[in-house]
Amino acid sequence: MSFIYWEDFVVGSIAEFGPRRVTREEIIAFAAAFDPQPMHMDEDFARSTMLGGLAASGWHTCAIGMRMIVDGFMGNSASIGSPGIDEVRWLKPVRPDDELTLHRTVLEARPLKSRPEWGLVKFRFELFNQARERVMIQENINLFGRRAGAS
Amino acid sequence: MSFIYWEDFVVGSIAEFGPRRVTREEIIAFAAAFDPQPMHMDEDFARSTMLGGLAASGWHTCAIGMRMIVDGFMGNSASIGSPGIDEVRWLKPVRPDDELTLHRTVLEARPLKSRPEWGLVKFRFELFNQARERVMIQENINLFGRRAGAS
Repeated sequence: MSFIYWEDFVVGSIAEFGPRRVTREEIIAFAAAFDPQPMHMDEDFARSTMLGGLAASGWHTCAIGMRMIVDGFMGNSASIGSPGIDEVRWLKPVRPDDELTLHRTVLEARPLKSRPEWGLVKFRFELFNQARERVMIQENINLFGRRAGAS
Repeated sequence: MSFIYWEDFVVGSIAEFGPRRVTREEIIAFAAAFDPQPMHMDEDFARSTMLGGLAASGWHTCAIGMRMIVDGFMGNSASIGSPGIDEVRWLKPVRPDDELTLHRTVLEARPLKSRPEWGLVKFRFELFNQARERVMIQENINLFGRRAGAS
């Protein structure tokens, strides 16, 4: 796969990455480090909650999504960095042994007026589980370098 | 500190939690697991980028913020879970040895019509470093149980 620049993101295009399997061990380890609430660490407790069983921290789901983004395309791109995220919704629990697939939609792509050698891309990322249930949606802004000589 | 219910979140109130120190080792370990881009792992490369030096993944900053939220109050509350985040902005790099402080503002608090024993709270969370620079802002929705007998 050739190195990806801002010009390669076509508005309206859709791509799919993954799958990536989520383990019980990583759900508990992430929660222990960053979100030590019992619904993310204790199966019995989790069964009594809104989640209905052990489920990943929402921030873990975001972090898994980011790893799929980097492995899928960003790690082979002229990525500059991200100013932020416009919206995250955790729609269904992410469970041990779920196999997650990432869908990327390019919502917007424009050159930066202040830095003409860079361009901005706005993505919608959706994570689906193996039952094709959508577990997370997120809108994510990223800056990329443009091809040399582009203007 | 007594156990915290939905009724304890007063709209307009501000609270501060932390500080928490961020280490070089955890910045690199988080990036290796979830965001293996060189600006989060390689000091020399990072110096040549927009970040100007090694900086935490934005998702790591979110995860650190979540740990400060849980340690600060959510771990001692009737938290039910979160449907999502409305906006995240990474405003300044988070560096090795930064000491982060979390500011919490209660933006909104209302009972849930569909589940009268629960209430929704919308927070603004801001992370500041030891130079009092704001490094992240986020708007975060969470559900909490109400006191028994409340209606």
